[in-house]
Amino acid sequence: MQLGMIGLGRMGANMVRRLMRAGHQCVVHDLDPQSVATLVAEGAIGAVDVVDLLGKLDHPRAVWLMLPAAVTGRIARETASQMAPGDLLIDGGNSNYRNAVDLAAELAPAGVSYVDVGTSGGVWGLERGYSLMVGGAAEAVKALDPILAALAPGPDGCGASPGAADTASLGYLHCGPAGAGHFVKMVHNGIEYGMMAAYAEGLNILKAADAGDETRAADAETAPLHNPQYYRFGIDLAAVTEVWRHGSVIGSWLLDLTAHTLKEDATLARFDGKVSDSGEGRWTLQAAIEIGVPAPVLSSALFNRFASRDNDEFANKLLSAMRYSFGGHQEK
Amino acid sequence: MQLGMIGLGRMGANMVRRLMRAGHQCVVHDLDPQSVATLVAEGAIGAVDVVDLLGKLDHPRAVWLMLPAAVTGRIARETASQMAPGDLLIDGGNSNYRNAVDLAAELAPAGVSYVDVGTSGGVWGLERGYSLMVGGAAEAVKALDPILAALAPGPDGCGASPGAADTASLGYLHCGPAGAGHFVKMVHNGIEYGMMAAYAEGLNILKAADAGDETRAADAETAPLHNPQYYRFGIDLAAVTEVWRHGSVIGSWLLDLTAHTLKEDATLARFDGKVSDSGEGRWTLQAAIEIGVPAPVLSSALFNRFASRDNDEFANKLLSAMRYSFGGHQEK
Amino acid sequence: MQLGMIGLGRMGANMVRRLMRAGHQCVVHDLDPQSVATLVAEGAIGAVDVVDLLGKLDHPRAVWLMLPAAVTGRIARETASQMAPGDLLIDGGNSNYRNAVDLAAELAPAGVSYVDVGTSGGVWGLERGYSLMVGGAAEAVKALDPILAALAPGPDGCGASPGAADTASLGYLHCGPAGAGHFVKMVHNGIEYGMMAAYAEGLNILKAADAGDETRAADAETAPLHNPQYYRFGIDLAAVTEVWRHGSVIGSWLLDLTAHTLKEDATLARFDGKVSDSGEGRWTLQAAIEIGVPAPVLSSALFNRFASRDNDEFANKLLSAMRYSFGGHQEK
Amino acid sequence: MQLGMIGLGRMGANMVRRLMRAGHQCVVHDLDPQSVATLVAEGAIGAVDVVDLLGKLDHPRAVWLMLPAAVTGRIARETASQMAPGDLLIDGGNSNYRNAVDLAAELAPAGVSYVDVGTSGGVWGLERGYSLMVGGAAEAVKALDPILAALAPGPDGCGASPGAADTASLGYLHCGPAGAGHFVKMVHNGIEYGMMAAYAEGLNILKAADAGDETRAADAETAPLHNPQYYRFGIDLAAVTEVWRHGSVIGSWLLDLTAHTLKEDATLARFDGKVSDSGEGRWTLQAAIEIGVPAPVLSSALFNRFASRDNDEFANKLLSAMRYSFGGHQEK
Repeated sequence: MQLGMIGLGRMGANMVRRLMRAGHQCVVHDLDPQSVATLVAEGAIGAVDVVDLLGKLDHPRAVWLMLPAAVTGRIARETASQMAPGDLLIDGGNSNYRNAVDLAAELAPAGVSYVDVGTSGGVWGLERGYSLMVGGAAEAVKALDPILAALAPGPDGCGASPGAADTASLGYLHCGPAGAGHFVKMVHNGIEYGMMAAYAEGLNILKAADAGDETRAADAETAPLHNPQYYRFGIDLAAVTEVWRHGSVIGSWLLDLTAHTLKEDATLARFDGKVSDSGEGRWTLQAAIEIGVPAPVLSSALFNRFASRDNDEFANKLLSAMRYSFGGHQEK
Repeated sequence: MQLGMIGLGRMGANMVRRLMRAGHQCVVHDLDPQSVATLVAEGAIGAVDVVDLLGKLDHPRAVWLMLPAAVTGRIARETASQMAPGDLLIDGGNSNYRNAVDLAAELAPAGVSYVDVGTSGGVWGLERGYSLMVGGAAEAVKALDPILAALAPGPDGCGASPGAADTASLGYLHCGPAGAGHFVKMVHNGIEYGMMAAYAEGLNILKAADAGDETRAADAETAPLHNPQYYRFGIDLAAVTEVWRHGSVIGSWLLDLTAHTLKEDATLARFDGKVSDSGEGRWTLQAAIEIGVPAPVLSSALFNRFASRDNDEFANKLLSAMRYSFGGHQEK
Repeated sequence: MQLGMIGLGRMGANMVRRLMRAGHQCVVHDLDPQSVATLVAEGAIGAVDVVDLLGKLDHPRAVWLMLPAAVTGRIARETASQMAPGDLLIDGGNSNYRNAVDLAAELAPAGVSYVDVGTSGGVWGLERGYSLMVGGAAEAVKALDPILAALAPGPDGCGASPGAADTASLGYLHCGPAGAGHFVKMVHNGIEYGMMAAYAEGLNILKAADAGDETRAADAETAPLHNPQYYRFGIDLAAVTEVWRHGSVIGSWLLDLTAHTLKEDATLARFDGKVSDSGEGRWTLQAAIEIGVPAPVLSSALFNRFASRDNDEFANKLLSAMRYSFGGHQEK
Repeated sequence: MQLGMIGLGRMGANMVRRLMRAGHQCVVHDLDPQSVATLVAEGAIGAVDVVDLLGKLDHPRAVWLMLPAAVTGRIARETASQMAPGDLLIDGGNSNYRNAVDLAAELAPAGVSYVDVGTSGGVWGLERGYSLMVGGAAEAVKALDPILAALAPGPDGCGASPGAADTASLGYLHCGPAGAGHFVKMVHNGIEYGMMAAYAEGLNILKAADAGDETRAADAETAPLHNPQYYRFGIDLAAVTEVWRHGSVIGSWLLDLTAHTLKEDATLARFDGKVSDSGEGRWTLQAAIEIGVPAPVLSSALFNRFASRDNDEFANKLLSAMRYSFGGHQEK
């Protein structure tokens, strides 16, 4: 079928490619004409703006937005204002699910269906397929089935849990009404933060397993290492992550990637360790707090990212200041 | 080759089976004669006690202990006292790695080599193979290679990271001197706690995504739900975990198992939610603390398990008591 | 001066009393006529409803709301709709500061000033005075100075930091524009959660300091207590909290109350340990998350309260289910 | 009575002064002769080494060690080896309580009593008195009563909880057998970490309450600030901490110091924010973990200190590396 795609970044461009490979026709637009030209060279139909894109699609039209969260709402409203009854507007980006709840209600009177698709898979989705979590009215989601089936992995090597919902085992799922797709994707990313932090903390401990080989001066400010004889291991992190890939309880795709990365560069010297967060981890926590559900692991993972960007600097200065004021402790 | 196995619980018995399938000869002992008889019926040689077991092995002998952490040290010393120079004593259980550091030094004068093997794979190891993290002297580990290769998955469908250490990509790795195997396994389990908690917290949020459908009375003790319209989703957790298995960033073997479990019983009514911990999570944290490495996610996961067993009861009573004493707040 | 007070619960009633002691005239209303009657007997002027209350005040009128957060917004709007230009509407309850930001803007066109006063002091405020954090337009706050000065402790035994802002050392402070008062109070409560949890966790550890005297069976599900000889203390918590009150670094008013409470009832048997939260802890975290500031201690304290009310039950069942599925572990 | 003091740092020297003010005779030693000379000029008796110090005391002798944790064990054994039956050896420093358990048992056969005194009060103890938590045999602690009473605050302005244990309300308490004093002090410091972090996190949020005034670019790596209108407060932290000192629920001595510090220097520019930890926070967590008691707030506070010293650097690099490998995300 036909699909309009607005936003041709890392995600959007590869999704267009995967759709075209499956025989779908894509009309594409991006603020960057070069991004459009690249995909036109690969078989897509280019559009210079939203109106042009809509004009190149047959009715009823389906337009997929793959944009940064900060601009999605505005572009969605602009696009919808040009649409006709029966058209479908899809947000596949990392938007707050609340926008989908609001926009679906807002666009309903005009007969435009709003569908939110949480899309996981990253830069590997072109080859592996994308895991798709979909929210929206049943008939709108049904109409998109050919698109969703093409983007999803389809029958992969992972099998299906016994009795699994049909499309779930193919990698896409209608999760509920508008907002449900982004809600599930939001929590997916919250879990992702927690898993990533679990690996990172564990590997950081392994890296420091040679602490007993260091010499530390004894003073009143620093706890002495009591049992240096137990910390004399020089662990090969690349080899350890590799062995965990085979038969262990903590095997995962994230571990596959981590083992590969550490094999290439065990010191990760090219990274500064200022870890970004793109919003979904925050929203996960805000939802957990609003509904009164504890999420201490996910929040620790989120706050560590904040702290990695030094947003805890003043708090730490306060701690040093307090230590100085009650105990005369000097910073080391 | 020959191996003596002491301890025929869930792990030990299946390891014997996997070794016999690979053509190795196993002499087995357990306090429970029935466990011994079962394996004898499958081809193992039974032993009524440690002396009997040692007598049925050719020199140099290799004896593998697969026992609860609380008794491993005692049995290891008893067994070693009956061994001769050149013999190998292997601890494959969830022992504190410090015991391996200590025992290796203690047994060295008698010429007995102590090898610690962190063993991951659970009840699935019989079929999938076990991920093995090995500590000990190089020649001792080398002598065990046929056993380790048979227990490990070997060439599985997971491939190898480019340039991966030879045996790591087969599922076993010599990590360093005595203690290194259990140290790596300890951290592995710490990561496991964190991953499990990440999934559990996220799914718990999804389960509560219908909180807006509940009616709550307004009072001064409870925060009102401000935006009920954003929490009206009834999420099918079995379907969601299934779709995440296909192409998402958070795919893992733990997720495979979780999807399977939820498909069978979405309410998990058979479980009480009193979560045990078998020691390695604690030791991971104690190591992190001793060497000054932050591990907030892993500690949150550990403490949640403690709290699931109500070890926070008095702390919570104190909080209610404080609230009452300063604000007259009554528990709801 | 005159003040209208709507809401005569634990906080509102005592505030009226403190104001009357200072010579102010109070017109009071509550849905419960008995609450009104009680204060009328003590010298207040009763009102049967908001209109009655407004009619009994001279212009310009100042009306203070001391209500549960869930109803404050509605009552504020109803009251404001009856007010005239120059009138002041004050919210002294535990409302979300965002309401104050919104309401101040909403009421400005009608000439009604909205002032938000974060009020700390609990049931002790009548005697000790209340710590008041005030947001609003400068002239509105200035007009309320006699009321604020009477409610605040005034010159107490706590002295003033050198060069302290004048009113701050008396216990009240104009923190900024509308919303600033409740914002500061919100963070105050977030800190309160953290401090309370710090005491509760520490005392819980002291309570368990006799763990080495217990007998535990050895099994594969539970970590053995490695050093029982180090956990044979029976600590008198009432005495310990008392000694900390004298000269220690952790002395505080919360500790004073805790020592008093433990002296009366060391077991706290009258409490269930289901800890309520009235909103400000949640909002503190949501603000921290929105502005990207880490707050791991405050979030741990909040999430523990959620978990004390068993909102983690399904998450814990999932953990047990995972342990069973990969390792055959049974719950103990 | 007489007391020998070994270790004349910030704590030891002031304790000698407080004892001399109360009429006690002190024989003092420190590796730094200048520290000895200073106190001799104030009335103490100097000693050039441990033997000299012991020789200048009448039998039975009481010697107090006030040394860094890393050297206390060694000096304690050296000193005890020169002592006679009936002598008392006191450790008032921040030692691990386990050392006291071990040393008391080790020295008992020689008739030397070991007393551990947890000492809180910091550089202010000279004037305010020290809060003392004491472990040891009853008669040994009783013999030290004049010393303990002089060091403690005595009847201060804090009153006593009704029915408080006699000496607890004077600021010293016999908590139990050897080790109990340091155990209680250890937990005291754990609580201190938690309280400090609660204040620091809260004040850090207040400091960032003007985040809505900043301009941020929209991109896919950073979550946009959704509600800038709610973050336009410029909070005066010195004034806020001052107002909290008067009548609020979170008043404390730490808050008194913090308000004072912020009044002097609101930016804390003289501090780097590398927060030291001197051991007791670590031991508190290790005890909690060993006995299975959750302490998420205390651990968050500890781990933040580790992270403030960049011990999380490799973990953060791993997170950035994972984000790059699955999503092509670049660090900002």
